[in-house]
Amino acid sequence: MPETNLPGKIDAALLNALMEKVSEFGATPMGGVDRPALSDAHAAARNWFSAEMAARGYQIRIDAIGNLFGQIDLAGEGAPLIMLGSHIDSQPLGGRFDGAYGVMAALAAIESYRAWCSRTGTRPKCNFCVADWMNEEGARFTPSLLGSSVFSGENSLEFALSRQDRDGKSVADELARTGYAGTDTAPEPVAYLEVHIEGESELEQAGRHIAPFARHWGALKVKIEVTGEQAHTGPTKMALRKDALLGAAYIMAELRRLADTAPDTLYTSCARLDISPNSANIVPEKVVMFCELRAPEQNMLDWSEAGLRAALPGLAEQAFVSAEIVSVDRRPAGRFDSRLIRLVERGADENGYGRLELDTVGGHDAVTIQRRIPAIVFVVPSVDGVIHRYNEYTSPEDLAKGGDVLVSMIRRIDAAGGNLDKAVSINF
Amino acid sequence: MPETNLPGKIDAALLNALMEKVSEFGATPMGGVDRPALSDAHAAARNWFSAEMAARGYQIRIDAIGNLFGQIDLAGEGAPLIMLGSHIDSQPLGGRFDGAYGVMAALAAIESYRAWCSRTGTRPKCNFCVADWMNEEGARFTPSLLGSSVFSGENSLEFALSRQDRDGKSVADELARTGYAGTDTAPEPVAYLEVHIEGESELEQAGRHIAPFARHWGALKVKIEVTGEQAHTGPTKMALRKDALLGAAYIMAELRRLADTAPDTLYTSCARLDISPNSANIVPEKVVMFCELRAPEQNMLDWSEAGLRAALPGLAEQAFVSAEIVSVDRRPAGRFDSRLIRLVERGADENGYGRLELDTVGGHDAVTIQRRIPAIVFVVPSVDGVIHRYNEYTSPEDLAKGGDVLVSMIRRIDAAGGNLDKAVSINF
Repeated sequence: MPETNLPGKIDAALLNALMEKVSEFGATPMGGVDRPALSDAHAAARNWFSAEMAARGYQIRIDAIGNLFGQIDLAGEGAPLIMLGSHIDSQPLGGRFDGAYGVMAALAAIESYRAWCSRTGTRPKCNFCVADWMNEEGARFTPSLLGSSVFSGENSLEFALSRQDRDGKSVADELARTGYAGTDTAPEPVAYLEVHIEGESELEQAGRHIAPFARHWGALKVKIEVTGEQAHTGPTKMALRKDALLGAAYIMAELRRLADTAPDTLYTSCARLDISPNSANIVPEKVVMFCELRAPEQNMLDWSEAGLRAALPGLAEQAFVSAEIVSVDRRPAGRFDSRLIRLVERGADENGYGRLELDTVGGHDAVTIQRRIPAIVFVVPSVDGVIHRYNEYTSPEDLAKGGDVLVSMIRRIDAAGGNLDKAVSINF
Repeated sequence: MPETNLPGKIDAALLNALMEKVSEFGATPMGGVDRPALSDAHAAARNWFSAEMAARGYQIRIDAIGNLFGQIDLAGEGAPLIMLGSHIDSQPLGGRFDGAYGVMAALAAIESYRAWCSRTGTRPKCNFCVADWMNEEGARFTPSLLGSSVFSGENSLEFALSRQDRDGKSVADELARTGYAGTDTAPEPVAYLEVHIEGESELEQAGRHIAPFARHWGALKVKIEVTGEQAHTGPTKMALRKDALLGAAYIMAELRRLADTAPDTLYTSCARLDISPNSANIVPEKVVMFCELRAPEQNMLDWSEAGLRAALPGLAEQAFVSAEIVSVDRRPAGRFDSRLIRLVERGADENGYGRLELDTVGGHDAVTIQRRIPAIVFVVPSVDGVIHRYNEYTSPEDLAKGGDVLVSMIRRIDAAGGNLDKAVSINF
């Protein structure tokens, strides 16, 4: 028995091999991946991954919003189901680890536990399922968490299918084109576990390796439409210009000012502008701003939203334009399942891995899924806290540590027959 | 003889028919045109127009940068050549009149004068040529005035051919694709005349109809690259963000502030941003800003450039990014040929059209062409001063007035055998 496949340990060689393989799809010269949801590269990665699972005896299911599931009934039909996963889509010019790690670790953890059961004659009491959620990133189709939010009931299927990318292609069309317009019903697990790379450098700076998320910050995703008037940048007198981009500039500066008044408890951004016509010598007529306000507590979100709304008319007037909030997508702040947090901690402790407790500011599939079933995200270090960038990096050793904790968690939940209260107190 | 075709009058029916026809190419539902340089719509418009000229006996020439010329030798080979024209390319979602009017009026004016000569037995002393310059707008390929600046010697052919659009397609490739990679040498005229719609509402407000441009403002087209660092808009602490778009916002606000310190003598703009990656939840890593500074006098341009350069490091630092001016395209301020200004005035006066003298802030093909040969632009009113927008509008009556002045000008230059000094003093 190789040391990497001890009870409670992940098969690190398998995990590495899966990570290497998935990183080929949409690989960029800089070492990252460019694999937006339902792109050709994304579909190719999913085709490979579902063939890989099928070859290992997993039953493949694809639901109507294109979530991909691989289920293996180790305990026989009808037994409680434990689901592990994340997402294979990436940001444009993103890194290899965000999302893909959680999916590869899910399969490797289940396979490692399965092999251990088989070697030791342990009879599993639960069935297992890998989930690859559709469009977690929200880079190509907004909002993010699209597949998992349909699973959780937060968004309707119709809403999700009708989302369009910048070229006007809908999720429905692109699911059909890539072969992921499924008809299967989604599985019904008792718990959902997700391992991810950290988006900050807290673990690294503390010299620790595992952190469950206790709280997820709330977020307001605010779309603002700034409307001016198209004109020539040459002859049009300055006093007559209605420059929508200038209005957007004033609003961006104000958004940053708001965050600076509440250090570490309010994050703000405007990271995307759709500028029309975006031509060097035409005063822009319209700018759609994609803004975010994030905070750990609801009252801070309310305060910052009120501040933005109050400032908007004056900022617009300063540029002789109008500005209107056209949509607000609200993600409430909240807490993850305390029993699953405890299971992460026990997994880290029994492996001797130093741990922290953190909050997540960014969205994760588990954030929406925990509306429906107990769910958790826990993280391993990312060098320098880099995420959403080609050079995000986590060493194979740290990837394996997260996998070890996953194996420990499913072993405990399985031994408890899917009962989380019981699982927390099991000692091996 | 119809009244519209009197000596010194343009054939308004022909001008209207040509305007109607050219407006079909790239027509948008809102009533404008979308006909960027070397697009399919642009090529189709040029194909029609060159067939129209050929059918009327004009010899078609296309030079190596894709300028389209139609020449008719009314006085026989070797006689002085008078060139009239403008451009058929448009801004994205631009209007019908900008550029196209000057080209259609050129053909209609020459045809009207030709018909009058034929009816009256007048023997022309000059030959005539219509010019349709390639990529005046600079919307698809920067810089603007690309075809005319190769003609004038301001830009090299190699430079112009290697310009690329946002998809990386070069002028050379798109010329070849649309059939406008010509091999003819450009004609050698004694003067170049261009009629255009006004980009402001000075004529309208003054209740007048014709204005020659006396001065052309100088312009600095400044490309600024702002460099930050790509990161997740969720977990990344505000203090660690290096947001290139925020840096661009501060620079845009400063550009406007500079203009506000020098009302009516400095125009500034930033009308295009290339944002990378421009995804709602990734802190932007890079923004390329396309800025313009325009002024009637060189010392104001120098002052504003120095102000921008001085402010840049501090503005960048405020957003924890760097900002660098990567290119400056300098258009010197200058004056048009005084004899041609006088000929416009005489044309207006003899037709009884009220006139003004104006400056042009925007670029026109004549601005670069006057570096090589005497050239002029004069304008007719545009309703509300609208330009570069679907609803730019000039009535058929006002279009005809500009045409009448063109006819008057070529009649006078022709009578003087191409000698401009002499043409100014001719009385009919």
